[in-house]
Amino acid sequence: MLNFEYYNPTRISFGEGKVASLDKLIPQSAKVLILLGGGSAKRTGTLDEVKQALGQRTFLEFNGIEPNPTYETLMQAVEVVKQEKIDFLLAVGGGSVIDGTKFVAAAALYDGEPWDILLTGAKHVHAAVPFGTVLTLPATGSEMNSGSVITRKSIHAKLPFMHPTVYPQFSVLDPTKTYSLPERQVANGIVDAFVHITEQYLTYPVHAAVQDRYAEGLLQTLIELGPQIISDTENYEVRSNFMWVATQALNGLIGSGVPHDWATHMIGHELTALHDIDHARTLAIVLPSLLQVKKDKKHAKLLQFAERVWHITNGSEEQRIEEAIEKTRAFFESLGVGTRFGDYDLDASHIPALVAQLEAHGMVALGEHQDIDLNTAQQILEGAL
Amino acid sequence: MLNFEYYNPTRISFGEGKVASLDKLIPQSAKVLILLGGGSAKRTGTLDEVKQALGQRTFLEFNGIEPNPTYETLMQAVEVVKQEKIDFLLAVGGGSVIDGTKFVAAAALYDGEPWDILLTGAKHVHAAVPFGTVLTLPATGSEMNSGSVITRKSIHAKLPFMHPTVYPQFSVLDPTKTYSLPERQVANGIVDAFVHITEQYLTYPVHAAVQDRYAEGLLQTLIELGPQIISDTENYEVRSNFMWVATQALNGLIGSGVPHDWATHMIGHELTALHDIDHARTLAIVLPSLLQVKKDKKHAKLLQFAERVWHITNGSEEQRIEEAIEKTRAFFESLGVGTRFGDYDLDASHIPALVAQLEAHGMVALGEHQDIDLNTAQQILEGAL
Repeated sequence: MLNFEYYNPTRISFGEGKVASLDKLIPQSAKVLILLGGGSAKRTGTLDEVKQALGQRTFLEFNGIEPNPTYETLMQAVEVVKQEKIDFLLAVGGGSVIDGTKFVAAAALYDGEPWDILLTGAKHVHAAVPFGTVLTLPATGSEMNSGSVITRKSIHAKLPFMHPTVYPQFSVLDPTKTYSLPERQVANGIVDAFVHITEQYLTYPVHAAVQDRYAEGLLQTLIELGPQIISDTENYEVRSNFMWVATQALNGLIGSGVPHDWATHMIGHELTALHDIDHARTLAIVLPSLLQVKKDKKHAKLLQFAERVWHITNGSEEQRIEEAIEKTRAFFESLGVGTRFGDYDLDASHIPALVAQLEAHGMVALGEHQDIDLNTAQQILEGAL
Repeated sequence: MLNFEYYNPTRISFGEGKVASLDKLIPQSAKVLILLGGGSAKRTGTLDEVKQALGQRTFLEFNGIEPNPTYETLMQAVEVVKQEKIDFLLAVGGGSVIDGTKFVAAAALYDGEPWDILLTGAKHVHAAVPFGTVLTLPATGSEMNSGSVITRKSIHAKLPFMHPTVYPQFSVLDPTKTYSLPERQVANGIVDAFVHITEQYLTYPVHAAVQDRYAEGLLQTLIELGPQIISDTENYEVRSNFMWVATQALNGLIGSGVPHDWATHMIGHELTALHDIDHARTLAIVLPSLLQVKKDKKHAKLLQFAERVWHITNGSEEQRIEEAIEKTRAFFESLGVGTRFGDYDLDASHIPALVAQLEAHGMVALGEHQDIDLNTAQQILEGAL
C-alpha cells in the first residue's frame, strides 16, 4: 500500500425526508445563496422543500448553472455573494451545480483573478465561503469531495481544481429526489461513477486489499443494479444504492494508498470542451479504448477485474482481459451510452484538434505511469472510432 | 437502506515514517500530554520518535493506562490535564490508550462527576480537549471513531460512551509500529476487527448493497491474511492491510444505514469485567454461540455470509449456515484464540453471575431486534461451554 493522507469532514444526511434537516445543518443567522441548475429543482418541488426547511433565514436564489459549469456564469454568482454579503452557499442539484458552487465559494474570497484558481491548482486559495449541498443527481461524487471542474467557454478550456476548503460542510442525499431524473442523466450517472472507480482501481497492484475489495464491491453493485436503476425509476432501494455508490466512488476512500490513472477523464474533458458531449459519455468513449491500448501495463489489475468483478475465470489471461474490456463496453452500451466516435457524429478528422487541446493544456504525460503522451492519446482516440 | 447520518472528521496519516508528521498535525503552541500504556512505546523507540516530532513543544507523559482502561487510572490523568493546563492530548498506543484518552478529553472539561459520562451516554458532554493518536495496535478502530469503553474496577463495571467531540483530530497509522507486537495481541486484534464487522453485518438484510460489499471485503481480507498477519511479523504489505481493515471495521462507514447487533460485545464485556479475559477473546467465546442461537432471525445474512465470505455454495441452506459458523469458530481457533469457556478455566457455574451483571447494567434487550433477553443471553453463554 502506498503512504496516504485521508481526510473527509463532509457530513452525510442520507434518506427520504432528509431535506428537512437543513434547518439543523445551516446556522440560524446565515444569509444563504441557493445555487441552482436549469430549473428542475423548481419543477419537482425540491426547491420549495428547501425553502421551507430554511425557515426564517434570509436567502437569495442564483439560477442557471449549466452542465459543465462555466466560469462566465459562475462569476455572476460571485458578484452576488460579494454584493449581498452572503455567508452560506447551498447547492441544490447535481455535480455541475456543486462543482460550480465550490468555485464560487473559493472565488468569492480570492485575491486576484479567480481563473488563476484553475491555472495554479488552487495554490493561493486560503479560504472559501462555507456551503452545503442537496444532491439531486448521483454521478460525480462532488457532494463528498473537494474537487471541481470548471469550463471557460471563451477559450474552450475545461480544468479541475481541488482544495480542502471546498469540502461541503454537509450533503443531503435523498434517493427520492432522483425519481424524476431523465433516463439520459441516470445513465450518465452510472457511467460516471463506474469510471471514477476504474480510474482508481485499474492501474497496477500495490497490495491494497481493502481498497481493491471496496472498488470491486462498488463496481459489482453498479453492474448488478445497472439496468434496474434506469428502468425502475421509483425503486427506493435501487436508487439509494446507486446514490451511495456514486458518492463512495469519489470521496477519497477507494483512492487512498493506491495509484491513480485519470487519463480517461483528461482526454474526455477535451471531447466535452470541443464537442459539448456529456461528461459521462466522453468517459464511455475513452475508457474501453484506453484499457485496450494500456492492457500490458494494466495486466494484473485487468485480470483481477475480470475475475472479481465480471466473474470471468475461463480462457487465457489475454482472453479474460479482452472479455472484461468487452463486457465493460457492453455495459455502457446497455445503458444507452454510445462508446464510439460514430455515436456522436464524430470521425477521425476530429482527432488532431483534440490532441492539440491536450497539448495546449499540458496533458502530455497522463496515466498512472505518466506514459500516455500525445501519441498514445491519439492511439486511444483512434481506438474509439 | 435505513436512513443515516455519517460524519467522520478524523484525519488519517498512513504509512511508514508518518510519525514525523506530528509536527504538522499538532499546533506549535500546544502544551501536550502524551498518554501511554504499559511501556511498549518506550521500549520500541516509538516514544522517542514521537518526542522528536514534537520538537520545541512543551509536553508531559502519563504512563500506565491499562488494557481495559480504568476510571481509577484515567482520573489521575484528568488531574494532570487540569493542573498543568494541558491543551492537547496525544494517545500513543492501542485501543485502550485511545479509549482512555477520549475519556480524559471529555472528563477534563466536564461539569460534575465524570463517571456520569458513562452512566448518561455522554448526554451532558459539550466539549473535549482536542487530541490525536499514534496507533501501535490495530484492533479496536478507536483511532477513527468517537466511541470509548471504560472500566470502573471498584464496581466491576465496563461501560461505553460515544460523543462527536471525541473523534481524534488525527491518527497516525504506521504499519511498522506493529512489528514488535506480541502474537497474542495481534491475534486479539484480528478477532476484534472481525467481530466489529459482523456486529454491523450479520443482522438482517435492508438492501444495503455497498455496506454489505464493504463488510464482506473486510472479512475476506482478514480471512485471507489471517495466519500471515501473525506469522509474518515484518511483512509491511500484510501489516498495512491488517491495520487499515481494523480502522475501517469500526469508523462508522460499514455501519451506516444498516441494523446493528452488538450483543456479542455487551455479553463479552461482562466476561472481561468479572474474569479479566482479553476483550477480543470474550468476543470469540460469544459470537459463534450467538450466531447459533440466533440463526433463524439472522438466516438471510448468514446465508450471504456463507456464500460471499466463506464461498460455501453446496448443501442445504441450514448446512451452509452451520458450516459458516463452524468456519468462523475454526478461524478464531487457528489464530490461537479459544472459543469455549473451558479454554479460560470457566464452566457453567460462572454463568449466573454473568447474567446478573447483564441485568445490573440494563442489558436485558440486546441485538438488532432487542430480543436477546436474559434467558437468551444465558442460552448463548451455555452454548459457549
